[in-house]
Amino acid sequence: MTEPFKGRIGVIGAGALGALYGARMARAGHDVHFLLRSDYDHVREHGIEIRSEQGDFTLRPPVSRSPEEMGVCDLVLVGLKTTDNGALPPLLRPVVGPETIILTLQNGLGNEDFIAEQLRGWFPRTDPRPRVLGGVAFLCSNRIAPGVIHHISYGHVRLAELAGPATARTESVAQLFRDAAFGAETADSLEDIRWRKLVWNIPFNGLGVAAERCDSKAALEDDAISSVVIGLMEETIAAARADNVAIEREFLDLMIDYTRKMGAYKSSMQLDFEAGRPLEVEAIVGEPLRRARKADIPVPRMEMLHAILRRRDLLNRP
Amino acid sequence: MTEPFKGRIGVIGAGALGALYGARMARAGHDVHFLLRSDYDHVREHGIEIRSEQGDFTLRPPVSRSPEEMGVCDLVLVGLKTTDNGALPPLLRPVVGPETIILTLQNGLGNEDFIAEQLRGWFPRTDPRPRVLGGVAFLCSNRIAPGVIHHISYGHVRLAELAGPATARTESVAQLFRDAAFGAETADSLEDIRWRKLVWNIPFNGLGVAAERCDSKAALEDDAISSVVIGLMEETIAAARADNVAIEREFLDLMIDYTRKMGAYKSSMQLDFEAGRPLEVEAIVGEPLRRARKADIPVPRMEMLHAILRRRDLLNRP
Repeated sequence: MTEPFKGRIGVIGAGALGALYGARMARAGHDVHFLLRSDYDHVREHGIEIRSEQGDFTLRPPVSRSPEEMGVCDLVLVGLKTTDNGALPPLLRPVVGPETIILTLQNGLGNEDFIAEQLRGWFPRTDPRPRVLGGVAFLCSNRIAPGVIHHISYGHVRLAELAGPATARTESVAQLFRDAAFGAETADSLEDIRWRKLVWNIPFNGLGVAAERCDSKAALEDDAISSVVIGLMEETIAAARADNVAIEREFLDLMIDYTRKMGAYKSSMQLDFEAGRPLEVEAIVGEPLRRARKADIPVPRMEMLHAILRRRDLLNRP
Repeated sequence: MTEPFKGRIGVIGAGALGALYGARMARAGHDVHFLLRSDYDHVREHGIEIRSEQGDFTLRPPVSRSPEEMGVCDLVLVGLKTTDNGALPPLLRPVVGPETIILTLQNGLGNEDFIAEQLRGWFPRTDPRPRVLGGVAFLCSNRIAPGVIHHISYGHVRLAELAGPATARTESVAQLFRDAAFGAETADSLEDIRWRKLVWNIPFNGLGVAAERCDSKAALEDDAISSVVIGLMEETIAAARADNVAIEREFLDLMIDYTRKMGAYKSSMQLDFEAGRPLEVEAIVGEPLRRARKADIPVPRMEMLHAILRRRDLLNRP
């Protein structure tokens, strides 16, 4: 059996995703530190509270108010929303040393490259790519109050190296998630796991907002909307192919079946929209669209979705 | 010079469009009757008031509360919203005799055929088509209070026979509009004038709602939206071609230039949406989409627009 990753783990972006994974790893005995801003005082006093059908618990972990206070970690889990990526470099710099591994579990395309670019600036003499991992999380979880996370269901992850196939190190990071009682697989292509996730995320996150408060059940029950869902999935698969990722047609049917079983699920973008928060338009739709365009793949629905989401996002700010 | 149409004119759907055209024809000396429901008492007491840069005036026309009271007319102008087409047959039946001409100035595709179908039921022994005309109106006008119409600008019309080229009769109806001091042209193909109007209506009415309170200026200033505008115009031209209407590419550029000069114009669909009124989705987008599909023309943007508009319309009712 693979040994789990050993070392100091830092969580940046301790929201519904980061706090949950970090807390469950800590409960399993790992050394997990949390960088907190608005929740700092609350968590210092009351801890992080996880409410989950898989077991409620409260954790009193080491917390820091600044990345300098947190200091260098061996592994950093990035759970920040991609709309906050502009704030990521100064948060990351003080916790990253020349050997630090960074795993981003953020949505969409381009986050690993963005992080690698920062590393390249900070450590110009080493290739940053072997230190960056990406993961997709299949998770329903909400932060319902300061320090309180409601884990609704799922939670398994698929992890891959930014460059190259999975290694023993990728496996050891996956084992951390298994220690935390989540399913975890490693994959040999980051692009593959990212694009497969987008086959779901582009239509259901996008139309959840563009088609007006449209959860997964409403989308599949409306013939006109569900035919747009299929069209967007086909465009995503075509764009993925141009990005050297082959996704079989059966995967589309599988995603539809899987979604049918989810019931009335609101995507993170729909929840963000309804709460007046910024939408992850660029990571989830904009970057895939740019790659499709670069490869001359016609993606009219994706273009239209992007245009509508950008505008709705802009007008939705409080 | 052509003589204007002579006879008894009835206006059904005396809103921003019907009341304006009818009142200006009456002012020019024509015999115009108005069918009114909610505005009946107000207009009986105070008349129809037109506020326009082309001249304010108040008219005290003959008004009826029911079509039976109005009685048979020689020419009926239909200005009803297409979303009320279900109510049209019983309103039309009592005012239509075997010789009555009906001109619909409603939006979108399919209204003339719908009226011809009713005539076929009522007068099974005669071909209804020579008695139905269609017109597109280029008009900015709002009903701002009971009996009060604010005519903002434009107002010219293009008229055509449901079947066949323009005749002396078409000319005489056009002359009515000219008597009313509006520009009026006749055309030899109803489908041609309807599809050309749709080249503007589909993108600007549709995205005005789908892209969130997006007036014509906002649409053209946003690169992503305006590229969707162009895409929708191209799809409309392709669908028109399959419907035997040839629209040259220059027409698209002309429409964009024309729109740029309009400034921040809110389409009727955007105004309807903001006021919580039903949207003319089927006449403006649904019927063109069905014709494109029947001819196997790929119209992915039109499909997506239709799906989004249908849902936003459904959720927008008070």
